[in-house]
Amino acid sequence: MVCGLASLEEASPADLAVVSEARFLEKLPSSKAGAILGCVSVRAALEADGRPFLVTSTPQQAVRAVLEHFYPEISPEAAVHPTAWVHPEASLEHGVSVGPFAAISEGVWIGEGASIGAHCVIGPRARVGPGAVIFPHAVLYPNVVLGARVRIHSGARIGVDGFGYHFDGTAHQRVPQIGGCVLEDDVEVGANTCIDRGSTGVTRVGAGTKIDNLVHLGHNVTIGPLGIVVAQVGVSGSTRLGTGVILGGQAGLAGHITVGDGARVAAQAGVIGDVDPGVTIMGFPARPQREFLKAAAAQYRVPELLRRVRALEDQLASLESTGSATDSATDSGDPV
Amino acid sequence: MVCGLASLEEASPADLAVVSEARFLEKLPSSKAGAILGCVSVRAALEADGRPFLVTSTPQQAVRAVLEHFYPEISPEAAVHPTAWVHPEASLEHGVSVGPFAAISEGVWIGEGASIGAHCVIGPRARVGPGAVIFPHAVLYPNVVLGARVRIHSGARIGVDGFGYHFDGTAHQRVPQIGGCVLEDDVEVGANTCIDRGSTGVTRVGAGTKIDNLVHLGHNVTIGPLGIVVAQVGVSGSTRLGTGVILGGQAGLAGHITVGDGARVAAQAGVIGDVDPGVTIMGFPARPQREFLKAAAAQYRVPELLRRVRALEDQLASLESTGSATDSATDSGDPV
Amino acid sequence: MVCGLASLEEASPADLAVVSEARFLEKLPSSKAGAILGCVSVRAALEADGRPFLVTSTPQQAVRAVLEHFYPEISPEAAVHPTAWVHPEASLEHGVSVGPFAAISEGVWIGEGASIGAHCVIGPRARVGPGAVIFPHAVLYPNVVLGARVRIHSGARIGVDGFGYHFDGTAHQRVPQIGGCVLEDDVEVGANTCIDRGSTGVTRVGAGTKIDNLVHLGHNVTIGPLGIVVAQVGVSGSTRLGTGVILGGQAGLAGHITVGDGARVAAQAGVIGDVDPGVTIMGFPARPQREFLKAAAAQYRVPELLRRVRALEDQLASLESTGSATDSATDSGDPV
Repeated sequence: MVCGLASLEEASPADLAVVSEARFLEKLPSSKAGAILGCVSVRAALEADGRPFLVTSTPQQAVRAVLEHFYPEISPEAAVHPTAWVHPEASLEHGVSVGPFAAISEGVWIGEGASIGAHCVIGPRARVGPGAVIFPHAVLYPNVVLGARVRIHSGARIGVDGFGYHFDGTAHQRVPQIGGCVLEDDVEVGANTCIDRGSTGVTRVGAGTKIDNLVHLGHNVTIGPLGIVVAQVGVSGSTRLGTGVILGGQAGLAGHITVGDGARVAAQAGVIGDVDPGVTIMGFPARPQREFLKAAAAQYRVPELLRRVRALEDQLASLESTGSATDSATDSGDPV
Repeated sequence: MVCGLASLEEASPADLAVVSEARFLEKLPSSKAGAILGCVSVRAALEADGRPFLVTSTPQQAVRAVLEHFYPEISPEAAVHPTAWVHPEASLEHGVSVGPFAAISEGVWIGEGASIGAHCVIGPRARVGPGAVIFPHAVLYPNVVLGARVRIHSGARIGVDGFGYHFDGTAHQRVPQIGGCVLEDDVEVGANTCIDRGSTGVTRVGAGTKIDNLVHLGHNVTIGPLGIVVAQVGVSGSTRLGTGVILGGQAGLAGHITVGDGARVAAQAGVIGDVDPGVTIMGFPARPQREFLKAAAAQYRVPELLRRVRALEDQLASLESTGSATDSATDSGDPV
Repeated sequence: MVCGLASLEEASPADLAVVSEARFLEKLPSSKAGAILGCVSVRAALEADGRPFLVTSTPQQAVRAVLEHFYPEISPEAAVHPTAWVHPEASLEHGVSVGPFAAISEGVWIGEGASIGAHCVIGPRARVGPGAVIFPHAVLYPNVVLGARVRIHSGARIGVDGFGYHFDGTAHQRVPQIGGCVLEDDVEVGANTCIDRGSTGVTRVGAGTKIDNLVHLGHNVTIGPLGIVVAQVGVSGSTRLGTGVILGGQAGLAGHITVGDGARVAAQAGVIGDVDPGVTIMGFPARPQREFLKAAAAQYRVPELLRRVRALEDQLASLESTGSATDSATDSGDPV
């Protein structure tokens, strides 16, 4: 009988622990776990261990199912908290929950079963899809559109003014940012992430794309469906990412470029031009990963190379001076 | 008759679309735009197209004017929202707007026509200049001073404690951060940006400087007027930037350095020393752009260089061994 | 008689100014400071200057003491603001202060003398240690545990869902994030920083660790005591940092790596493997600092190296062609 899931080190006898790879078996003997969930390749070891166990060919999927069973997400009560402020011309469907001090502006529509956390600000005319979960302190600027089941973490700012200025010789004049911002179904956005709305036109994040904390997406960025954007990435204005693109942590992308379907940008890479579909790129300015890693390793041999080239130059000079000494001896017509 | 502005692809017959450069002409035939705003160099093409058009030698400026005409910024009602909390000793000039749940502390002064968004916290004794716009969820720490028409986006934190500690052998002891934080007229600050106040003295952002989202400015940083700071830049404590400096996205600057007027720091550059006026620098540690790009390209030839040097060494060795074989034959006094 | 502390340039006759190093003496003659606090090495110069002065062998420590004396931190009134919302099942010890619009959820415990700023959201069952200071707009997700005297700056998000997904061939399925998040005694967290809770298990920040603004710590990260994490650093999931580790601004660390006690990671470094205790590393992929700086400098000599190798190749080719011309002349048996 187990009622929780924990790592081998932290599990108590009331917990199920996971051995997703053979290399974790070393921690098995000292674990207090009451039962084990293992991958098929460790079946023999688990039989020898003697504890109750289950094996599966898809341990990650099994873990997810176990977690969902043991730790179901608790939906907040479908009610508007008495301290919240809801504009009389906002429209809330059945089963919506609104937390303390949330502010829902005029013309807002909130779909069935959506949850708006404490202190969220939902700007005028924004739309929140059914089943969406907005964590405390998120802000939607006016007219933002969120699809079904979108999750927005705490402090995310959606639909912010883009960074558009025109220098008139005296001052940076602000160009009005009048476009839209659409996050399609099942998009998730991490804490304190900022997404600018379009300048004109729309900033769009495709269905099922997952975005981590502290990410910046500039105006008119388009991300295809199923993207993964890791923490602290920055994407400049008007850049277009295809389907299933993965951006590693702290990567930066220039504006007005195109990244093909399935491309991967390594952590901290700086991308200043288009990226072909399926390619993995790295470094600044970013290059194909293999090429980058080869050059990065070779870079550490440049000091040695400098010494070797100097040695060659010396050798050659002495070889030539020997030759030319002979020559000049010859040329000078040695009297002896 | 048009009543909006959109890109060539997205425009409807009720929209004006822009052809700011000749290369966009290829999208003209298939556009549904009702009228075109073009640069002077495309006049002939627009005449051939047949739609109503205007040409201008300053298309960016024209776009701004058109946007301001079609999409005027709607000022919120000049009133204090009934859910807001305003300290009795705060002072609000004529025409100030305060949004839901905003908290205005004691000793605050807010200038004429300024707008304080929902949930903003204006700390004790802070001053907000006339016409300033503070978007929802921004926080001003105590004593912060904002000039006229400053714009602060959602979630920005202004006047935060600087990161100053003194390690006494046992613990990092916090050094009290008692300085000020001043944003001069027409400064704009992006969403979730953090600006620390001075340790002693002042952190100051010069008039007309524009700062993007998720930027960090450390204590006692000074930015001259008319700077541009792109998203996710970090500037460490006491660094001084001159007039019109441009910092590209994700650039990082060490503390206690000086960046001259008009200098440009490329995206992701890491600056660890002073920068001369007018220079553009790149890479880590940052170097003049031309030098960096040349070295970055050359880096990818190092693997080839290693092969070529090895070949040279082999050639030279075989040349010398031939030579020395001859020598040694000579030396040994071949009897034949 | 002085009643404040300021830099030499900014001090008035009512201020004490600091000369912590001899190089600052040049600013002394023109300073208006009423008195000087100097390091022992400048005693003679201060005697010559004539103003009242004190000298100390530990100027940083003295500055801290002076600042704490002149500018004591003002604790907010120990009261719950009338606009705050406190769940009836939350438990507040003696001397707790709660600011405007703060929301304290069910099951929360707040220790003696702690201060909860305006608009803070303290999630269900979170614990806040005695003497903790939570600045306005910080959010604690459910079950977060803060030790004594922890300081959390504005907009920090503590205990956020980790970024964990399992791609099932069709969609990125979210893996429930059910772990905890513990910040031990005397931890400080900068503005808008995000710390994810454990996936299973715990994210833990050790006692006395100081974290700057806009930092991201992924799920299950462990930081030992007395760490320093500068602004905009990102640490990926399950990475473990030892005691006293220093991470420079914008550094990025991959997941599942170990950084030894006392190691230092330079600003902007990208760390993709384990780091030995006490080592300083730099660059991407990060390498020991000395090695990195040498290679970084050498990199700028690669263009020159390419020219020198080409010259060597030409010389050698001409040498060999001379040689082979002689040889072939010999071989061909010149008839003359």
